[in-house]
Amino acid sequence: MGEKTIKSETKYEGKFISLRVDEVILDNGKTATREVVEHPGAAAILAVTKEKEAFFVRQYRKATEKVLLEIPAGKLDPGETPRDCAERELAEEVGMAANDLRLLAAFYTSPGFATERIYVYLATGLKPKTDAKPDEDEILDAQRIPLQEAVQMAKDGEIEDAKTMIALLLAADLGLAR
Amino acid sequence: MGEKTIKSETKYEGKFISLRVDEVILDNGKTATREVVEHPGAAAILAVTKEKEAFFVRQYRKATEKVLLEIPAGKLDPGETPRDCAERELAEEVGMAANDLRLLAAFYTSPGFATERIYVYLATGLKPKTDAKPDEDEILDAQRIPLQEAVQMAKDGEIEDAKTMIALLLAADLGLAR
Repeated sequence: MGEKTIKSETKYEGKFISLRVDEVILDNGKTATREVVEHPGAAAILAVTKEKEAFFVRQYRKATEKVLLEIPAGKLDPGETPRDCAERELAEEVGMAANDLRLLAAFYTSPGFATERIYVYLATGLKPKTDAKPDEDEILDAQRIPLQEAVQMAKDGEIEDAKTMIALLLAADLGLAR
Repeated sequence: MGEKTIKSETKYEGKFISLRVDEVILDNGKTATREVVEHPGAAAILAVTKEKEAFFVRQYRKATEKVLLEIPAGKLDPGETPRDCAERELAEEVGMAANDLRLLAAFYTSPGFATERIYVYLATGLKPKTDAKPDEDEILDAQRIPLQEAVQMAKDGEIEDAKTMIALLLAADLGLAR
């Protein structure tokens, strides 16, 4: 099962993402068009305190035109490992460092049109590192929420971000929210 | 918390998605650029048989350059409700109809750059409807997998699609995989 690219055209090259249109040949010999958004990949981090509270950021998301509650996350810098990215975002967005980091999951957010793959880490053994300093163009409101409550919010639809839902549901499955 | 758009430019208008670049003013008075992929939204459906098997499709995804195992899903047609879309995809991709449909979750797959919102349904009371007939440019391999096994695959990283992971983890949480 595969698709052989016979033509590829970049339609937009931007700051964070680019978009190309591929013409492909399917296994049945037919041709098809694929619109692909190229994304550098991202890392996200569910940081849980000894008191079983987790760190979140509230942030206005232009694409959704609303404020979402998400775990700290960000795009990979060129050459950066997902693990380093996760630690960097934890420091930048909520000002914390972690003694223990564990990969919870890695997945495609929207494989129908985007290359984005997100690596989600679980962080424990937390300690304050620096004052949080988000990117210049980010306005973040960091907050702690009891993990159990956050898991319920993911189930109830109050948390609407896919990566955050997956992180919380996997943490709950591991028994961390009890 | 919000972002006021002061300029918006469409950079690409395609068959399924389009891309625009917005210039926005943040609450702190600074300006920023937002790259937004516009997507019509989608519906996905976790269909579970009396024997606790679920339906999946294996499909080559150009954006990921690999074959992924996913629950049936597709973009909303113009004017189509998420529920109708879920039922249509269930028929088209695996040839089934459902007596009972229940909304499991609705979420943003990648709110940092895409408007895509997916509605995930749980379907039970299944019966064969028609022969599966995927879209002309889709090559799908439909299969049934015991729900418990599929949930384990989502936890182990063998299932790498965000919507499918969320559907399976929520189904497990509801006790359906026991």
